[in-house]
Amino acid sequence: MKKKLINKPENVVSEMIEGIYLANQDRLRKIDNFNIVVRKELSAGKVALISGGGSGHEPAHAGYVGRGMLDAAVSGAVFTSPTPDAIYEAIKEVDSGSGVLMVVKNYTGDVMNFEMAAEMAAMDDIEVEQVIVNDDIAVEDSLYTTGRRGVAGTVFVHKIAGAEAEKGSDLKKVVSTAEKVIKNVKTKGVAINPCRVPGAEKSTFSLSEKEIEMGIGIHGEPGTERQEIREVDQIVEAIISELLSELDLREESEVALMINGMGGTPLMELYIANRKAHQLLEEQGIAVYKTYVGEYMTSLEMAGLSVTLLKLDPELKELLDAETEINL
Amino acid sequence: MKKKLINKPENVVSEMIEGIYLANQDRLRKIDNFNIVVRKELSAGKVALISGGGSGHEPAHAGYVGRGMLDAAVSGAVFTSPTPDAIYEAIKEVDSGSGVLMVVKNYTGDVMNFEMAAEMAAMDDIEVEQVIVNDDIAVEDSLYTTGRRGVAGTVFVHKIAGAEAEKGSDLKKVVSTAEKVIKNVKTKGVAINPCRVPGAEKSTFSLSEKEIEMGIGIHGEPGTERQEIREVDQIVEAIISELLSELDLREESEVALMINGMGGTPLMELYIANRKAHQLLEEQGIAVYKTYVGEYMTSLEMAGLSVTLLKLDPELKELLDAETEINL
Repeated sequence: MKKKLINKPENVVSEMIEGIYLANQDRLRKIDNFNIVVRKELSAGKVALISGGGSGHEPAHAGYVGRGMLDAAVSGAVFTSPTPDAIYEAIKEVDSGSGVLMVVKNYTGDVMNFEMAAEMAAMDDIEVEQVIVNDDIAVEDSLYTTGRRGVAGTVFVHKIAGAEAEKGSDLKKVVSTAEKVIKNVKTKGVAINPCRVPGAEKSTFSLSEKEIEMGIGIHGEPGTERQEIREVDQIVEAIISELLSELDLREESEVALMINGMGGTPLMELYIANRKAHQLLEEQGIAVYKTYVGEYMTSLEMAGLSVTLLKLDPELKELLDAETEINL
Repeated sequence: MKKKLINKPENVVSEMIEGIYLANQDRLRKIDNFNIVVRKELSAGKVALISGGGSGHEPAHAGYVGRGMLDAAVSGAVFTSPTPDAIYEAIKEVDSGSGVLMVVKNYTGDVMNFEMAAEMAAMDDIEVEQVIVNDDIAVEDSLYTTGRRGVAGTVFVHKIAGAEAEKGSDLKKVVSTAEKVIKNVKTKGVAINPCRVPGAEKSTFSLSEKEIEMGIGIHGEPGTERQEIREVDQIVEAIISELLSELDLREESEVALMINGMGGTPLMELYIANRKAHQLLEEQGIAVYKTYVGEYMTSLEMAGLSVTLLKLDPELKELLDAETEINL
């Protein structure tokens, strides 16, 4: 599909950021000349959290800026890392002297640009740490990554590290909590239709009417295996089985489960997938402590979903439950 | 597109309802043998609110069952009215002696079946009232309706009448508040791609790569006018202009604005449309009191959006702001 409800392709990001700001003026402000949204009222003395990346993953990351989650989000062009100077700008905006944690999805461009921004901030004596989210179990290396990619599990890092910072913990503790989430969160995705970048002539890959793409990422890159379409229960079963083999879960373990739509998937399909995921986990004696069904980390209008499991412990449960301004 | 992430088409609704229940066990319970979800803890003495309709509009209506909004939602087959006996079952579940308000979207089948259920409940001496939402300004009559259709504006009726009931108001007052919302809410939609009902061979209509359909409903029915695709700013301008001519707004009037995705539209596009809607309203001196951008009343995987304006007064603002369990 070539049609989009946009104006000029080159303006999609700045117009979208303006639209996000206008819808959330009680909560957000916008930095002039940058595609950055910042919490309107920053908490003095709190460790600040920033995240960002290419656009096209909405609500990530601007949708997670608010009390108890992120302090700022930096948006690059569609599927393109934000520049170091924009990230540096965000760091300066949110630092209140207690340091800044950058939550970075593992893509080569993002990692490089966030690191450069941290170096720029270091010259201003701002303490900056970064954590690299790599929850996607589909690929080891990819066109865009050394090591595993960061996908929907990133939202759990925002929530839990955000709650840790909100408690008044210091930067070292916020980093270690974020690392704990990263260690315990795994994701895998599937698509039945690809997406098209605004202004591009073609979709990022193509599938016949009978094919699905397993192991997709969130930048429209093709997945790891093309398979014939089958019942979603079987697809969910394959994904859950792979996720379980990656996490050290036993009977009575508790998890948070996320069924994430990729942008073009109706909620009906996500709920049907959720039903099967719950059944499979129950069969294994694993308790689902909290379930998230909706769009959290998308890939434009891609039709598909990803399943994320986060292994919980009492500390992570408390932080996951902590109050936040964001509808999650 | 024919592919869907489902199992057997005949099971989509029951499997979806099971998935909704499993994701929200803290808030919901499910009625055996019916596709009905009910609030887990009903408030004794409160006027109860129920809604429902065909499936395929998720999160409507099950997603709005919770403290401060609905007490139960009844789901029919895809794009098909729920049966009178199912609606009657929901009425009996939620009535606590103070009466029940049914919020019904104006479709012939829905109106008829909800009315029959109310008659069945009357024989049990349950007091039942209904309001008919008809916010869609696109058509006067349609294939499915006498009079205007009920679409995304219904969510404002759930929210505001729900808050009125939560305050402890009696059935008469809850009805009159719901009627006040209905009188002041108007919607119009556009699609760039249709949807396909599970199990159907074809999409509900078809569009070329250059066409859009103005005035669409939420059951995949074609709209009122086929136009050439143009910049979304122009599309939003046409819609807002029509909505304004329907509402008695003047300078300093306040409105709630909803940019509703139809199921397959990326959030990026909805935010770009929101930017233009805000600009146009500001030019008219109309203040946007609250903005809703996201998926509220969908049509499976249809790509498109609708714009809703609700004219506010101090009473409606207070009810719109009232606390609710639902993320809205």
